[in-house]
Amino acid sequence: MESPELPPVLRGGQPQGPRGQRSLDPHLDRYAERTAGMTASEIRALFSVASRPEVVSLAGGMPNLAALPLESLAAEVARLVATEGQTALQYGSAHGVPELREQIVEVMALEGISAHPDDVVVTVGSQMALDTVARIFCDPGDVIIAEAPSYVGALGSFAAYQAEVVHVSMDDEGLVPDDLRQALEAAERAGKRVKFLYTIPNFHNPAGVTLAVRRRAEVLEICARHGVLVIEDNPYGLLGFDNQIYPALRADDPDNVIYLGSFSKIFASGLRVGWALAPHAVREKLVLASESATLCPPTFNQLLVSRYLSTHDWKGQIKSYREVYRERRDAMLGALEQHMPAGCQWTRPDGGFYVWLTAPEGVDTKAMLPRAITKRVAYVSGTAFHANGFGSRQMRLSFCYPTPDRIREGVRRLGGVLQDELELLNTFGTVRPPALGGPQAPSPDTA
Amino acid sequence: MESPELPPVLRGGQPQGPRGQRSLDPHLDRYAERTAGMTASEIRALFSVASRPEVVSLAGGMPNLAALPLESLAAEVARLVATEGQTALQYGSAHGVPELREQIVEVMALEGISAHPDDVVVTVGSQMALDTVARIFCDPGDVIIAEAPSYVGALGSFAAYQAEVVHVSMDDEGLVPDDLRQALEAAERAGKRVKFLYTIPNFHNPAGVTLAVRRRAEVLEICARHGVLVIEDNPYGLLGFDNQIYPALRADDPDNVIYLGSFSKIFASGLRVGWALAPHAVREKLVLASESATLCPPTFNQLLVSRYLSTHDWKGQIKSYREVYRERRDAMLGALEQHMPAGCQWTRPDGGFYVWLTAPEGVDTKAMLPRAITKRVAYVSGTAFHANGFGSRQMRLSFCYPTPDRIREGVRRLGGVLQDELELLNTFGTVRPPALGGPQAPSPDTA
Repeated sequence: MESPELPPVLRGGQPQGPRGQRSLDPHLDRYAERTAGMTASEIRALFSVASRPEVVSLAGGMPNLAALPLESLAAEVARLVATEGQTALQYGSAHGVPELREQIVEVMALEGISAHPDDVVVTVGSQMALDTVARIFCDPGDVIIAEAPSYVGALGSFAAYQAEVVHVSMDDEGLVPDDLRQALEAAERAGKRVKFLYTIPNFHNPAGVTLAVRRRAEVLEICARHGVLVIEDNPYGLLGFDNQIYPALRADDPDNVIYLGSFSKIFASGLRVGWALAPHAVREKLVLASESATLCPPTFNQLLVSRYLSTHDWKGQIKSYREVYRERRDAMLGALEQHMPAGCQWTRPDGGFYVWLTAPEGVDTKAMLPRAITKRVAYVSGTAFHANGFGSRQMRLSFCYPTPDRIREGVRRLGGVLQDELELLNTFGTVRPPALGGPQAPSPDTA
Repeated sequence: MESPELPPVLRGGQPQGPRGQRSLDPHLDRYAERTAGMTASEIRALFSVASRPEVVSLAGGMPNLAALPLESLAAEVARLVATEGQTALQYGSAHGVPELREQIVEVMALEGISAHPDDVVVTVGSQMALDTVARIFCDPGDVIIAEAPSYVGALGSFAAYQAEVVHVSMDDEGLVPDDLRQALEAAERAGKRVKFLYTIPNFHNPAGVTLAVRRRAEVLEICARHGVLVIEDNPYGLLGFDNQIYPALRADDPDNVIYLGSFSKIFASGLRVGWALAPHAVREKLVLASESATLCPPTFNQLLVSRYLSTHDWKGQIKSYREVYRERRDAMLGALEQHMPAGCQWTRPDGGFYVWLTAPEGVDTKAMLPRAITKRVAYVSGTAFHANGFGSRQMRLSFCYPTPDRIREGVRRLGGVLQDELELLNTFGTVRPPALGGPQAPSPDTA
């Protein structure tokens, strides 16, 4: 990995290399069915390249932690160990630390949610909440409805339970209710068992759009009528750049919505503290499934988050994060206006981490990625966010981590790459390989 | 839960109570097949009762952390946040922090293991390693061979993947090779697909016995001949009371053994840091499956364990733990000699946390448990450690957590309970309900 050339792992869909060739795996016929389709995601393969300093990575979804008050956090965690070490370093319950569950209820109240702490289950990041929900609901072949595009980590987890993802289109106002209705009716006609709608209503990853408030009741009503649960994944809900907070779907339908939340984007991702809020009977099952997966989430991390919430100005910290990300969003949108060739379109997020860009007809963003990396800019191609191989003209651009100057430079480079690509296309015509689908595991830099 | 009477959850096999009746669950027909059999374990139900101060709990598997140097740990963790906070609080890779993986290789070297850090995967406790192994290997109906009895958390995880557990008997020298051979041959004759042998060779949970060194090569040879992987779960391996360290199975067969390790018993359980060491190709799959489950284990916890290993006398700490547990083991064995009625038998562990007691014919330890709790002593009945309802004459007694005086008092009370039980049996004859089986989720206090 010493030259700026593309590493071998990026050259094909499978992880490769001297030790990793799949044909050399003596355990190949021992794996479960779910494992056969498990391959490294494009983003994962990119991770090592995109982290090289000369590359501007617009690929990763790592939050920017520069604004964290490390000194006072250091003092807090030392106090935790010194005064509560015997508890903090010991096993806890799979349900989660009671005082943290109470505080989580207060966090969710900001979005209009009224809930009982008993119905909160603390998990190892909201990824584990997502995985546990899939675990208790999905048999092989069950259908999950998800937006097109959708979060890569959700697709990876759903694939692990051999669920079939049916995508529903979005526009600038988020999920399109008519398309949702049609998808549900089509699944019913086909005799399929739809388990839930998985949706990211606010500041969508990767689409950068928000479900219009006037659509929310309709989405809930459609799902309720078809007897389908709603999984509301909301890691970015408090990161609206105009201080706006949209009402949670869960606030309007406590019995049919499972809400997933996370401290990764509003505090610190490396602690891996997330949660699920679920109707009581489902919550019981989540706790049991969670026990069989990890016994319990780390007590230490839960108590640290709890102390942070009670001793620090956590709302002020979220305000700082909003300002950091708004400045970066502005840098990206300005640079896109300046550098993108004609024919490119992109979303204009009012919160969160991501812009979703659609290139002109003929561009294949996955095929173009090696050339982009040669020009020292990285993104995630749109196919990673679809279970069906779609998204080949699209890409996700993250503005969360690099500085505004680096973002501008990255977008400038990307504009050049796209310009070259379009010139080649104009000269030689469209050369487009067949779409590649298949389940992909998520990557830690895409949460 | 204010009286010493038995709470409602202990009265049946299902979790019950005003909010938890299963018949009231409107989501009942939506769950996956695996979820139907998911019920609270006996131990989980016990948790709240057994933690009351008047009850001597010989039930839980919580390590004793009194010997931890909390002050210097507090300083260490503060330094970690102050100097490496931006890394420690950020996402990492699902594979685990490289420096910790190197140190884990050194820990395993104490057991004769020679390994490459690339083949170590850090997990959220070794429970997650176990769950992830089941996830990549087990389709519904696949067979897993396990000792009788076996770790309750393993049985819960295997049930979540709908694997069938076939038990193989143990004696004072651990797993009986002839029985293993016969179980494999029977499964082959029945056309079943055996995925692996799950074994806890050292200081077995719950049996308290150790696989004789002279049996180890034979067990490996049998599994290799039948094309069956070995999952070696070894959380207690460094807790031998005579400072003895048994050679790991993995040391002798790197290609056919997946080794699971944990810092829960040699450092701190509340950090939830464990690992799997796997043949290279399997390791790739473990990382991908782990990503879809939690994205990554907490960076913070990994770096804290890494710093602890490099700045503290961790081997000295293990020595302290050994002394703590040896004193407790001695207290328990002495009290058992003194207080158990004739006809009781028990194992004499030379390491770990547990004694396995077999009561005279006719005693049902599960039915007796409410009476024991009324007499202010708790244990785990043997059925929890079997997938097939066996173990009704047996119980697990933990000596890890209570003080030696409390252990003696608890065993004294238990002796009285058993004595009363035997007198009743002598008067009224054997009254034995049918054995109860079914998968059970593990509990955090049983790791």
